[in-house]
Amino acid sequence: MTAYAAPVKDMLFVLNELADLNAINGLPGYGDATPDTVEAILEESAKFTGEVLAPQAREADKAPSFFAEGKVTTAKGYRAAFKQFAEGGWQGLQHPVEFGGQGLPKVVGTACNEMLNSADLSFALCPLLTDGAIEALMTAGSEEQRNRYLPQLINGEWTGTMNLTEPQAGSDLSLIRSKAVKQMDGTYRLSGQKIFITYGEHDLAENIIHFVLARTPDAPAGVKGISLFIVPKVLLNADGSLGARNAVQCVSIEHKLGIKSSPTCVLQYGGTTEQEGAVGYLLGEENRGLEYMFIMMNAARFAVGVQGLAVAERAYQQALQYAKDRIQSRPVDASLPAAGPIIHHPDVRRMLLLMRTQTEAARALAYVTASYADVAHHTVDTALAAEQQALYEYLVPIVKGWCTEMSVEVTSLGIQVHGGMGFIEETGAAQWYRDARILTIYEGTTAIQANDLVGRKTAKDGGAVAQLVLTRIQVTLTLLKAHPHPEAARLAKRLHEAQLALRDVVAFIVSHVKTDINAVFAGSVPYLKLAGLTLGGWQLARAWLAAQTQLQAGQGDAGFLQAKCQSALFFAEHLLPQTQALRTSIVDGAASVVALV
Amino acid sequence: MTAYAAPVKDMLFVLNELADLNAINGLPGYGDATPDTVEAILEESAKFTGEVLAPQAREADKAPSFFAEGKVTTAKGYRAAFKQFAEGGWQGLQHPVEFGGQGLPKVVGTACNEMLNSADLSFALCPLLTDGAIEALMTAGSEEQRNRYLPQLINGEWTGTMNLTEPQAGSDLSLIRSKAVKQMDGTYRLSGQKIFITYGEHDLAENIIHFVLARTPDAPAGVKGISLFIVPKVLLNADGSLGARNAVQCVSIEHKLGIKSSPTCVLQYGGTTEQEGAVGYLLGEENRGLEYMFIMMNAARFAVGVQGLAVAERAYQQALQYAKDRIQSRPVDASLPAAGPIIHHPDVRRMLLLMRTQTEAARALAYVTASYADVAHHTVDTALAAEQQALYEYLVPIVKGWCTEMSVEVTSLGIQVHGGMGFIEETGAAQWYRDARILTIYEGTTAIQANDLVGRKTAKDGGAVAQLVLTRIQVTLTLLKAHPHPEAARLAKRLHEAQLALRDVVAFIVSHVKTDINAVFAGSVPYLKLAGLTLGGWQLARAWLAAQTQLQAGQGDAGFLQAKCQSALFFAEHLLPQTQALRTSIVDGAASVVALV
Repeated sequence: MTAYAAPVKDMLFVLNELADLNAINGLPGYGDATPDTVEAILEESAKFTGEVLAPQAREADKAPSFFAEGKVTTAKGYRAAFKQFAEGGWQGLQHPVEFGGQGLPKVVGTACNEMLNSADLSFALCPLLTDGAIEALMTAGSEEQRNRYLPQLINGEWTGTMNLTEPQAGSDLSLIRSKAVKQMDGTYRLSGQKIFITYGEHDLAENIIHFVLARTPDAPAGVKGISLFIVPKVLLNADGSLGARNAVQCVSIEHKLGIKSSPTCVLQYGGTTEQEGAVGYLLGEENRGLEYMFIMMNAARFAVGVQGLAVAERAYQQALQYAKDRIQSRPVDASLPAAGPIIHHPDVRRMLLLMRTQTEAARALAYVTASYADVAHHTVDTALAAEQQALYEYLVPIVKGWCTEMSVEVTSLGIQVHGGMGFIEETGAAQWYRDARILTIYEGTTAIQANDLVGRKTAKDGGAVAQLVLTRIQVTLTLLKAHPHPEAARLAKRLHEAQLALRDVVAFIVSHVKTDINAVFAGSVPYLKLAGLTLGGWQLARAWLAAQTQLQAGQGDAGFLQAKCQSALFFAEHLLPQTQALRTSIVDGAASVVALV
Repeated sequence: MTAYAAPVKDMLFVLNELADLNAINGLPGYGDATPDTVEAILEESAKFTGEVLAPQAREADKAPSFFAEGKVTTAKGYRAAFKQFAEGGWQGLQHPVEFGGQGLPKVVGTACNEMLNSADLSFALCPLLTDGAIEALMTAGSEEQRNRYLPQLINGEWTGTMNLTEPQAGSDLSLIRSKAVKQMDGTYRLSGQKIFITYGEHDLAENIIHFVLARTPDAPAGVKGISLFIVPKVLLNADGSLGARNAVQCVSIEHKLGIKSSPTCVLQYGGTTEQEGAVGYLLGEENRGLEYMFIMMNAARFAVGVQGLAVAERAYQQALQYAKDRIQSRPVDASLPAAGPIIHHPDVRRMLLLMRTQTEAARALAYVTASYADVAHHTVDTALAAEQQALYEYLVPIVKGWCTEMSVEVTSLGIQVHGGMGFIEETGAAQWYRDARILTIYEGTTAIQANDLVGRKTAKDGGAVAQLVLTRIQVTLTLLKAHPHPEAARLAKRLHEAQLALRDVVAFIVSHVKTDINAVFAGSVPYLKLAGLTLGGWQLARAWLAAQTQLQAGQGDAGFLQAKCQSALFFAEHLLPQTQALRTSIVDGAASVVALV
């Protein structure tokens, strides 16, 4: 396995040129996030992830976290690494200063989370879930609950989990059966079984705070009768110190295709009687659990999109290194006298460019999306805040869906570049492929993201936010069309075609959602992919413009900037044309999906 | 894991309606292959593969074949199953009657091999390699060699292997270093290490006949100095009985992503001195080894394409069953009163149709390709034979490349349909995904297939055979355009667009191969995919015509025939549009690949 070196240069380019870090730095509360400080943080994160975490990922896959006698022992090195992670303050990066966090913008946290996930997806899942728990407490927790749990979640003493799934209730949370019965003292007693609980049990921290969906006895049926509870693994005494063990047990962990060192637990809440139930505390109000959970989930969905980009980056780095090292066959253009490194073969170059450019596009799209959230939450301009929030919410399912689907393809290409060696586990390329495969599934499958995109994010407002995005693409197109460089016209041609395809599909959805709902939803995933490609290509086109400006001014690293320009062009000519096929599938092909015999 | 039931009805439809089994049955030597006999054979094969092999595949993945003390012990049940396979005469199905085979057409063998591979890819690899060994002996073996080895290879007493790869020589066989030194008695002594040798050691048969590429001491450098040797694991006495153990040892087996019960061996030939070399017998003439190996390889490449289609079929069957069983969420069109089976959700239908239609297209393309070989080898019309052979050779890299790339996508969709359960190994869907991942690599990666398609199969004859294929598509287009059914025009529109894209790309290759070789080879894999999609769509369009004819005549199973029509339409509207994007990549996008920074 090759080393991982965080692509700090590209990250900073995206932050500064595309996500407008400078403007975010000017918002109230983000005064500390100067470009220099951010660069220093990224360098520090690169060091920790590259030197501590990345080298142990292969071993953690081979000898993963295991379950015995109710306990989960995490993979070798995880405890020490988690301690270092906590002590470094990484968990609190984007969380409030008043609870011990650093209060930095989401866009900076996103860059650091990318590194964490590139280094070891299995490890990084624990902080990812804790971030969700923090988010839920910030949104719906009482002051007492925030004070009680946030400092330790933020400083890494404790970790958090999300408990949604039950055997019969996966994507369909209306089928949840876990019960919560209110007691005289205002607490609840929970009973039921939850499955697929990431880091539901482990040895990294002294306590685990579970966030659990359950029903009260008189709750309405379906999704409107679900409440959210805080269930600590170890109960807290009145002074906040650790008390008795709560009635929640890990029964088993799953044997999975990938992310093997992230323990995926079956958790049993309670015993056979109500009094043996696990002690839980209601978060917010009864029957509003799904609403709060969606807040955690939206943060987690965005984070999973970043996981996709992260594992793609890792796979790319390894494949690139192999392609430079492996000697096999003379190039077809006879540019070398004998067999040379396989990177000289046109198809290997094509595969590497598919990997690199999709990863760069995903990074740009994810960071820009995060920047919308930062502006939305910190600007004093309420109209701007509403607009940026709407853009953020439109983009979350696209970042989640497209970046993860892309990661399955990119990690597969990573194997292919290695040839036969890619299929041998020792090489390590197969691990990224196995790890990536969960990303299009958990925190809502690609279809669930696409349904969200079609329903709540496009049809609901009659395509208004989608139109806003199309208008922003138009700004970039206008700049490209006015640009004298010959590449600008090539870029503009493909981006314009993609923009028109996206426009047509949005119009199709808005006009058909009431009259032919099956046709609209048959095209939901193709729509998500079309949007991801178009927006990814748009971000790379913006990168091309920024790079050209720097090149003409004689600023920056010319080699790096030229590579950015090539990425934009390759993406435009090899990925963006797919948008036309997707439009055809959606607009002309719906009937042949619906009519399944 | 769900059961596997061979899709005999679809196989027979393809054999009879698309691959013209009737005409093959009329060729000299194929008189026994009547439609009735073929149906009976397929039913018998379905029984063996469905009842004996398929049920043990999951266990064989969990507790795979293992290596200890120089020996490989195959997975539980493999020995008994192989005995049954051999006794059933399955190895000899398409091999000559004079050596104990059944002498049936390749197109029939292909259907049976599909079943074998759907049932258990790891198991099926052993017969696949033996087929290659038989092919090599039939082509280049002396009469004495044929008599000595063929009967036992055909009756399953022995098995065969192909030994090409060395650590430094994978796709680039010119780098082979294994040595063969001629002895006074005419035999050779071989020394060297071979890697990635499928079933290089095992306990299924009493002898293994290795076919080994090596260099004689005075051989020219590069690919023109490679010879092919027969190296039995156990030497034969003069009377053909088993004698002493030869100097070939299995040193280790690989720990792989998939096909875990197919032992992938490192084989060490010879010891430290020449006299300790393994005894080998020259096949054909010195320095023509690669030529003979290509005969084995072409057969094996076609067979690997069939593996792709086979594993896709298996994944589809499992996903379809799950989608019918799993209850989750109410359909968006409210067509059910509450949560129902997920097959009612439009995106699940779309995924299942992507799986089904690509598998059906691959089956049709593979069987039709096999039928070309049958006609080429058995017709007395030499002009027809030459034409059919040319078509066969053009199609082999497409069957290998496209059917296997498709299988990676289809097995991934198989996981996706299962949601979170798909990521749990116990479910079994992940196995097909892991197993399929080798198929685009071994027997020549997709890029190697694509280079063959571009160089030897397209550029070399100035696109003449490609033109022949385009003309045949035109025949189907003419029939569609004359057909009164409204679906015919929809099919014709998409097939025509695809045909034009293929035509443009062939013209681009032929006109640029001398002037801009890098540009041509940068588009080689996209060309292969474009050809696979177009030809797959063409075969399904032919199936649509045949099904319509039967439906109008009131013949056949109406439900089955309607499903065939739907497959054609879905493929046309959801897969064929990709051809346009591929044309753009190839014709307009070459420069952005070649200019990798």
